Amino acid sequence: MDFGLTPEQVAFQETARDFARERLLPQAGDWDEAHHFPAEALREAASLGFAGIYVPEAAGGTGLSRLDAAIIFEELAAADPSTAAFLSIHNMVAWMIARFGDAAQQERFLPDLLSGAQFASYCLTEPGCGSDAAALRTRADREGTAQYRLNGSKAFISGGGVSGLYATMVRTGGEGPRGISCVLVEKGRPGLLFGKPEKKLGWNSQPTTMVTFADCLIPVENRLGAEGDGFRFAMMGLDGGRINIAACSLGGARACLEAATAYVQQRRAFGQALAEFQGLQFRLADMATELEAARLMVHRAAAALDAGAADATLRCAMAKRFATDACFRICDEALQLHGGYGYIRETQVERYLRDLRVHRILEGTNEIMRVIIARKLLEGS
Amino acid sequence: MDFGLTPEQVAFQETARDFARERLLPQAGDWDEAHHFPAEALREAASLGFAGIYVPEAAGGTGLSRLDAAIIFEELAAADPSTAAFLSIHNMVAWMIARFGDAAQQERFLPDLLSGAQFASYCLTEPGCGSDAAALRTRADREGTAQYRLNGSKAFISGGGVSGLYATMVRTGGEGPRGISCVLVEKGRPGLLFGKPEKKLGWNSQPTTMVTFADCLIPVENRLGAEGDGFRFAMMGLDGGRINIAACSLGGARACLEAATAYVQQRRAFGQALAEFQGLQFRLADMATELEAARLMVHRAAAALDAGAADATLRCAMAKRFATDACFRICDEALQLHGGYGYIRETQVERYLRDLRVHRILEGTNEIMRVIIARKLLEGS
Amino acid sequence: MDFGLTPEQVAFQETARDFARERLLPQAGDWDEAHHFPAEALREAASLGFAGIYVPEAAGGTGLSRLDAAIIFEELAAADPSTAAFLSIHNMVAWMIARFGDAAQQERFLPDLLSGAQFASYCLTEPGCGSDAAALRTRADREGTAQYRLNGSKAFISGGGVSGLYATMVRTGGEGPRGISCVLVEKGRPGLLFGKPEKKLGWNSQPTTMVTFADCLIPVENRLGAEGDGFRFAMMGLDGGRINIAACSLGGARACLEAATAYVQQRRAFGQALAEFQGLQFRLADMATELEAARLMVHRAAAALDAGAADATLRCAMAKRFATDACFRICDEALQLHGGYGYIRETQVERYLRDLRVHRILEGTNEIMRVIIARKLLEGS
Amino acid sequence: MDFGLTPEQVAFQETARDFARERLLPQAGDWDEAHHFPAEALREAASLGFAGIYVPEAAGGTGLSRLDAAIIFEELAAADPSTAAFLSIHNMVAWMIARFGDAAQQERFLPDLLSGAQFASYCLTEPGCGSDAAALRTRADREGTAQYRLNGSKAFISGGGVSGLYATMVRTGGEGPRGISCVLVEKGRPGLLFGKPEKKLGWNSQPTTMVTFADCLIPVENRLGAEGDGFRFAMMGLDGGRINIAACSLGGARACLEAATAYVQQRRAFGQALAEFQGLQFRLADMATELEAARLMVHRAAAALDAGAADATLRCAMAKRFATDACFRICDEALQLHGGYGYIRETQVERYLRDLRVHRILEGTNEIMRVIIARKLLEGS
Repeated sequence: MDFGLTPEQVAFQETARDFARERLLPQAGDWDEAHHFPAEALREAASLGFAGIYVPEAAGGTGLSRLDAAIIFEELAAADPSTAAFLSIHNMVAWMIARFGDAAQQERFLPDLLSGAQFASYCLTEPGCGSDAAALRTRADREGTAQYRLNGSKAFISGGGVSGLYATMVRTGGEGPRGISCVLVEKGRPGLLFGKPEKKLGWNSQPTTMVTFADCLIPVENRLGAEGDGFRFAMMGLDGGRINIAACSLGGARACLEAATAYVQQRRAFGQALAEFQGLQFRLADMATELEAARLMVHRAAAALDAGAADATLRCAMAKRFATDACFRICDEALQLHGGYGYIRETQVERYLRDLRVHRILEGTNEIMRVIIARKLLEGS
Repeated sequence: MDFGLTPEQVAFQETARDFARERLLPQAGDWDEAHHFPAEALREAASLGFAGIYVPEAAGGTGLSRLDAAIIFEELAAADPSTAAFLSIHNMVAWMIARFGDAAQQERFLPDLLSGAQFASYCLTEPGCGSDAAALRTRADREGTAQYRLNGSKAFISGGGVSGLYATMVRTGGEGPRGISCVLVEKGRPGLLFGKPEKKLGWNSQPTTMVTFADCLIPVENRLGAEGDGFRFAMMGLDGGRINIAACSLGGARACLEAATAYVQQRRAFGQALAEFQGLQFRLADMATELEAARLMVHRAAAALDAGAADATLRCAMAKRFATDACFRICDEALQLHGGYGYIRETQVERYLRDLRVHRILEGTNEIMRVIIARKLLEGS
Repeated sequence: MDFGLTPEQVAFQETARDFARERLLPQAGDWDEAHHFPAEALREAASLGFAGIYVPEAAGGTGLSRLDAAIIFEELAAADPSTAAFLSIHNMVAWMIARFGDAAQQERFLPDLLSGAQFASYCLTEPGCGSDAAALRTRADREGTAQYRLNGSKAFISGGGVSGLYATMVRTGGEGPRGISCVLVEKGRPGLLFGKPEKKLGWNSQPTTMVTFADCLIPVENRLGAEGDGFRFAMMGLDGGRINIAACSLGGARACLEAATAYVQQRRAFGQALAEFQGLQFRLADMATELEAARLMVHRAAAALDAGAADATLRCAMAKRFATDACFRICDEALQLHGGYGYIRETQVERYLRDLRVHRILEGTNEIMRVIIARKLLEGS
Repeated sequence: MDFGLTPEQVAFQETARDFARERLLPQAGDWDEAHHFPAEALREAASLGFAGIYVPEAAGGTGLSRLDAAIIFEELAAADPSTAAFLSIHNMVAWMIARFGDAAQQERFLPDLLSGAQFASYCLTEPGCGSDAAALRTRADREGTAQYRLNGSKAFISGGGVSGLYATMVRTGGEGPRGISCVLVEKGRPGLLFGKPEKKLGWNSQPTTMVTFADCLIPVENRLGAEGDGFRFAMMGLDGGRINIAACSLGGARACLEAATAYVQQRRAFGQALAEFQGLQFRLADMATELEAARLMVHRAAAALDAGAADATLRCAMAKRFATDACFRICDEALQLHGGYGYIRETQVERYLRDLRVHRILEGTNEIMRVIIARKLLEGS
């Protein structure tokens, strides 16, 4: 085993860290407050290769691994989990096109996604079915040989309205996962409608909307892979998506731990620095330990996915469950260690807490992660 | 032992519940979003006797017990923890005046506080000393025989700018708790200045500001009790304040538990109601159990305070620590059980989560509660 | 509400405490190690009225309430949870006879049970069905009009072999709870057989055996109530049994907390008493707080049962779940605070830990408690 | 990064697993019950190279890494944590001699330790100072130029009386860590006395005794390194010891998780296998996830130690804290999932629970781990 970073990994880790500190951190609080989507900063991230991190170089991507991506997303999220997480979803879609799209689709869609000229959203969840994704009801019915007619709605779509491309899971066949296909819908298609942005606890630098298809016609060429492949693609995308989102939790928690460590060293009470109180030291120790365990889980899962290991889905589910829970707790403890200041927006810890809260819910709730883990465990034994 | 409510308690519990449902709940979300201080609703609460719940009838108050107050605050907070908590602080100050003020002071200040014509704030914490309150540095120096000149700043003052009266702990003597006095400062006194409202994670229906005294002159008649009594008064107020704030946590958690219970019964996945999944049932069971334990702790502490029991401070600290932690967890679990909907403002669970977060910090952080508990425990054995 | 003890309660609390300190504590370690059943000490307990605490005085019992019993069992268990718990099961059976038995049965069986001349065991669980008790398969078939022929086996029977009377749930009818009756089987009946004592983690002062009925004939007069009533009786007995066992957990945890508190005050490291380390103080504070919450839950449930409240079963389940989990954690923490000494038998904390471990399992596992709580919660809303 | 095992690692992992299953598992329960020290089985382990796993080949050892050792100890402990842990302490001492001993010392002591002809104990803790090891008071005073006279007592010595060699930290100089030296004391030296074996919660296959030096004379040649080096050696040994003991926790927890998984699949209630209840599935999922995180922490720390990394001590402390806590919880949950059977010795889960309990205490309590972690954290920032 080898747990070290290669010089190349150290290099892009630093690139990501510098970018995050210079371009994201100074404005992250404002973007959160103003509910501003930082398209320009995201395009700069794309210019550094962060819009298609694990898209192969042959397809125009950066050609890195999932593990590399986890390292990068941790750095970006240390400044702004919301913006980093949006970018991670964009990466997931770009990878799906590179992995499952034919040459024509790659050529049509990837350049704009990789340059950041356009952003991509992932449309799986529906108002009536979150965890039970295979029950989705958005229909894509054939309209002649060349087109699909889409009808239905998708809920909680990150980037709804601002993204240029929507990778959408639709029902082209019968019930269950086998009846689902994946289609790409460009913004601007008649019948592609966006609800008004949801008001949320966090993740405010990215709009979340309902996406509705009302007799929305798309060409058959916008279908990724064969009919019936969509659910499989969606799940394969999610394996990576779970690592990404977990990596974003790592970054947020790390930032909060660092803030709390600095705060207790500088703040004094009862004649000494807070850092000298053993009760608080023990908290910091447990936060740091949990963060380290979370990071190892994420990196381990990413390596499994990179290796195409049989247990990759299991490991991704474990990493997502463990890291997103642990990292939220770390933010919560960090807020507590700040006392009243932790409750104030200016201190920023509360922003990380709000952003990380949703990581326990999306890309499959942590309850669904447990379902996946238990199933694999009981199968395997 | 007897754990039942008296008919009278049931009566005002229902009064509070009805008021909360009709006057607070429909607008609580808007007040939160608009950062609106609902003075009118608070005045209506006052008209029901909720502005001086445990102020003796002789002093114009409602003459109920701390236990009664806990029952009332739970009901109010089930609709709006932030507004209920503000009112609980107001009650704490009103009680301090009724308990420690002389007849003239009671006559000058109580009528407006009890009618809701004015609200009261409690000013203990300073920018440099939160937990270590006895180290406060705001000075009140004698200016002749009739006046004090106040200089210094108080931080995180709930109601700063909107309250008409500020019960302020100031240093009139030497270092330590014995050098502290409690003075009442009316809004409008020259030199009483308010910072701009803090941007916070929650508690948005009440402004929180810095309160600064810049050569602010007040008459000696505004001092409560003798010089040097202030810290003791402040701590006695806090015993009740801790019960109140813990009771507000009970209400918030109850509302979230009810929302989650309703949600899992109505929402379906994988062909059945969420309520039929044992993994989720177990969560609900633990939430309900913890809430019950928290409520018992709060009521037990309130009864101890009512009885003037020797262990009242210990019990108040235990109840505050236990209830505010448990109730936050319940809100957090309730949010999780709602899936993506939990993260949306409209569902309201996230509002309770945000409001309850600060209960673990204020009126003495839960770390300070542990310090108090451990001290009593080690003394006592 | 009133949380205080009456003078009478204080009196028998002291009686129980004194008895526990003088007769149980000095030998509890030896009984544990030698797997000795302390019949004599139990008879002495009976002479103090502890063999039928909540059996009505009219039936020869002590005529106290469930709440009174909880107070007594806490005291006994503070010295020896295993012996106290055995006595609590005996009490449960004595109560069942007093409550559901006819005059003749009360006369035949109660005097010996209440004097401690005989002990009673409760036989519900079977090897193939623990949590799913209503699936039990031990048969009682009519043998003419006057007798039942019993066949089948009961598992994990506390007091197997040493008790004189076995309150046994048997199937006299069809499947499900309605086919179950409760019969009393005296030791000495041909066909009543005992397995060899199980080797267990704890509860060593009471033998636990399989109890087998091999064509065991008993008179019809040994049936409690009507045919088909057995499961209901068993469940009603368990409501009280759960309070009792939870009360035994309170006693064990209290003893461990006291031991840990004393230890950290006397033991020194790094130049000061362990008690001065804030990290350890915080642990003690949380232990004490959890113990208090657990006690309130137990007393609250006992009061509900005493009052015949509609929510009594719910409250008993909550109390059992909460208290047995919390109290085990307290023992575990107390062991940890003792360092290496905690692992040594002589220190005794490990005995409490071992004894309390089974309280989370028996009288309905804590998972079954969650099932009960969730069912009531979802019904009720 | 690379998380895979090399073919060589897989090979000795299998060797260890086979040995554990064939030679340890069938008797582990009996050894526990009989308090039997399995010298013969340990010698067989030695014959497989497990007595000096990370002793260099040049010194006659197996020449593997700490990471390799962690893999081996996990396998051994999956059958018998107590015996595996004893062997891990022996390995720690053998390594200390290989690392810090001169050629003559290596020649005198290592062959017998590596062949298993003799076992070694590590004597640091004293009755009056556990966590505060540097305060030790056992003296080694010069007796002429050639000898030390030892006086004092060591507590909780694993292998006391059965080991042939005692690596003992003694005070040769002034107060504090710099006054401590490490000496090797052979069994048989006059004045080397053993207390009677402690009765313990677990770890029964290895005797634990007081070791007393009463004017015990040893030659100066028995001192490892220079005077004053002892504490440093002891701490360096402990870094590895912590990994070893944590690895033993991994094995125990894995065995319990496997047992629980098998049990819930075979046991039925309410008409279905326990494995079909989601409430229990979620538990299994969390157990498996925590175990995986614990294993990663242990392997990561071992790799750091192998690499001589600056953060090795921090990582060892984190791994020990996290893994020993998590693995105990896993055993505890596994016991719970077995219901009543979990409490019975025959099921064996309770043996693992008892054995693993002490891992949270020894080689530095988990509280001391937190002290170490916090110190490094606060230094580093």
